[in-house]
Amino acid sequence: MTTPQTTPPPGTFEILHADASSGARTGRLWTAHGPIETPVFMPVGTQGTVKTLEPRDLTENGVQVILGNTYHLMLRPGVSIVEACGGLHRFMGWGGPILTDSGGFQVFSLANLRKVRPGGVEFQSHIDGTKFFLGPAEAMAIQRGLGSDIAMCLDECPPYPCDPQTACQAVDKTLSWAALCKRQARAPGQLVFGIVQGGEYAPLRERCARELVAIGFDGYAVGGVSVGEPEPVLLREIDDGVRHLPVARPRYVMGLGDFGQMVASVACGVDMFDCVMPTRHARNGTAFTRHGSFPVKAGEYKLDTRPVEEGCGCYACRHFSRAYIRHLLNVGEILGVRLLTIHNVHCYMGFFREMRAAIAAGAFETWRREFAAKRQEQRGAGSGES
Amino acid sequence: MTTPQTTPPPGTFEILHADASSGARTGRLWTAHGPIETPVFMPVGTQGTVKTLEPRDLTENGVQVILGNTYHLMLRPGVSIVEACGGLHRFMGWGGPILTDSGGFQVFSLANLRKVRPGGVEFQSHIDGTKFFLGPAEAMAIQRGLGSDIAMCLDECPPYPCDPQTACQAVDKTLSWAALCKRQARAPGQLVFGIVQGGEYAPLRERCARELVAIGFDGYAVGGVSVGEPEPVLLREIDDGVRHLPVARPRYVMGLGDFGQMVASVACGVDMFDCVMPTRHARNGTAFTRHGSFPVKAGEYKLDTRPVEEGCGCYACRHFSRAYIRHLLNVGEILGVRLLTIHNVHCYMGFFREMRAAIAAGAFETWRREFAAKRQEQRGAGSGES
Repeated sequence: MTTPQTTPPPGTFEILHADASSGARTGRLWTAHGPIETPVFMPVGTQGTVKTLEPRDLTENGVQVILGNTYHLMLRPGVSIVEACGGLHRFMGWGGPILTDSGGFQVFSLANLRKVRPGGVEFQSHIDGTKFFLGPAEAMAIQRGLGSDIAMCLDECPPYPCDPQTACQAVDKTLSWAALCKRQARAPGQLVFGIVQGGEYAPLRERCARELVAIGFDGYAVGGVSVGEPEPVLLREIDDGVRHLPVARPRYVMGLGDFGQMVASVACGVDMFDCVMPTRHARNGTAFTRHGSFPVKAGEYKLDTRPVEEGCGCYACRHFSRAYIRHLLNVGEILGVRLLTIHNVHCYMGFFREMRAAIAAGAFETWRREFAAKRQEQRGAGSGES
Repeated sequence: MTTPQTTPPPGTFEILHADASSGARTGRLWTAHGPIETPVFMPVGTQGTVKTLEPRDLTENGVQVILGNTYHLMLRPGVSIVEACGGLHRFMGWGGPILTDSGGFQVFSLANLRKVRPGGVEFQSHIDGTKFFLGPAEAMAIQRGLGSDIAMCLDECPPYPCDPQTACQAVDKTLSWAALCKRQARAPGQLVFGIVQGGEYAPLRERCARELVAIGFDGYAVGGVSVGEPEPVLLREIDDGVRHLPVARPRYVMGLGDFGQMVASVACGVDMFDCVMPTRHARNGTAFTRHGSFPVKAGEYKLDTRPVEEGCGCYACRHFSRAYIRHLLNVGEILGVRLLTIHNVHCYMGFFREMRAAIAAGAFETWRREFAAKRQEQRGAGSGES
């Protein structure tokens, strides 16, 4: 007699391996659209697609979960259209987990004529000037309509640098909005994550984290990082947030995509990342490799018949040369951007798969040292890599 | 005892079925990169890619042979780079047959400051002004370097309308260049096709066809059509050329992509077509269906959860709605163009597969009448289709 295997309810977070000498751990976060093996990198699908990629490309390259942008989707096509088409998963044909942000960050960075009110933000679309209001209730209603697996609380992300009083006010607003977000209706099985703000001020980060935990969320993010601060400040901010978050819940650092910074964050106990880097840089012609990046458009690659990254198993590297992809990029062929996006996403996914394997094998510190050494060596070697 | 199957040498053209009541036939043209079932449509891969598509997409959608543009490839990346990378097949990762044009048509339509000399054309790149000379020897040398399976003779394509004397001079030049092209060295197994010019003048088309046949080519094209003339003139020009070409060799009409005109041409005995329509129109947001086309970007599709073409088996139609593709096109997502390109190419390939099956079944006339009736009906129905 076999026991029927039951799927754990959404929100279940199993910690599978904990590193002995750092905060790194591997885990499995269950969502309404399946499990996510952590640490995980989430490619960004701003407008209902990870730019240039189809759902089958995501699967083929090991993507587990993607991020959708509430701000962009509320503007175009509008949440009512996505809802009428059966939600974001069905609309874009992606059956795996989706995390949506709250829209707050883009309202602050993209929208026109915004006015911050105690209850939310009034703003105009950067596309056509249409007026919108985004408060905690609106942000959650939109994410509910999109039907994402993980919704993020609306927060206020102050700029860097930022004086302590402004940072404190942003924390207050973030906390009061988080309490309201927690009370909103959710899509079936939808998880909600709170976001730690506090700028570069450790006591603010601590207070924000503790009060969010008191409200109680399915997971916690560290926000307001990688907004222009130097790397040491960035890493301290992450540590200042994470150290006060519960070990048993997933932790997510928003907007971080640098390999070295992500490894350092994993060592602090971070489980989830998202960033536009692999996709945006592909559009600029930059190839990522495990140990650096290089501009494929450069003249030195015009006769280079090697793949973008030797030993890489992605479709682009198995079939095409640097010379070909360089040509496509230089003549403005869309396929060049697509092939480089496939490679970059594959590279990020492989990097995290390797990192998870290292943690699971109890070899995270060794792996981390080797990674740093290879990266250093590559930097020294030069040859257009950076 | 089984007889080992031998592959017929490149240039072998087997006529499999000949229609009893028209000139239509199905055939198999053998090339150095495999056989081509005719009648066939060749998508255009101007700059070393069928825009937005990978070789695996071509295979998945039933593409047998693609066209590469000599003019674009000689400018960027340059034939020496393609040659150094192992030829065009290897450069772009496509293992099937490739036909290359001679570059002449693009020199006349795109290049700057061109001067026609008896021996060829002097021109400047429309990209950076670099000076080039393209004569019969150069056109064949480039196509040899690219390593295409079918090379086209350099010809002079006069505009429409065109007086008889100009058309006659273009025929004279086309014939003298064809004789020179015939004598040039070829890539291994490379076939060479002659091109019938003559404008709207039946006696010129006849003379050109007869003299090309006297020189002797692996196949023959009708050129200088679909350059602005009304449809009845166009169809007469095709018939005027084809009727003087040998039944036993493949016949190709250059630059034709309209379903009705292609069916009429097949009825005259044409075997091969190429056109930018399915790919270029996808970039404008136009979807082709078997019986018409429609602009997917139109507002009426914003909530339309049907696929682009109901019953279509392409990846785009199996997974995505008109509403989703419309959204992608409207926000400028590359994926929208790619999905529509996949659909349009699939639609063209399916159309030709159906036509070949009808000819093989002795039902070409019935199929042709039904096609015309459905098309007419769709036109009457309106609903944004045209």
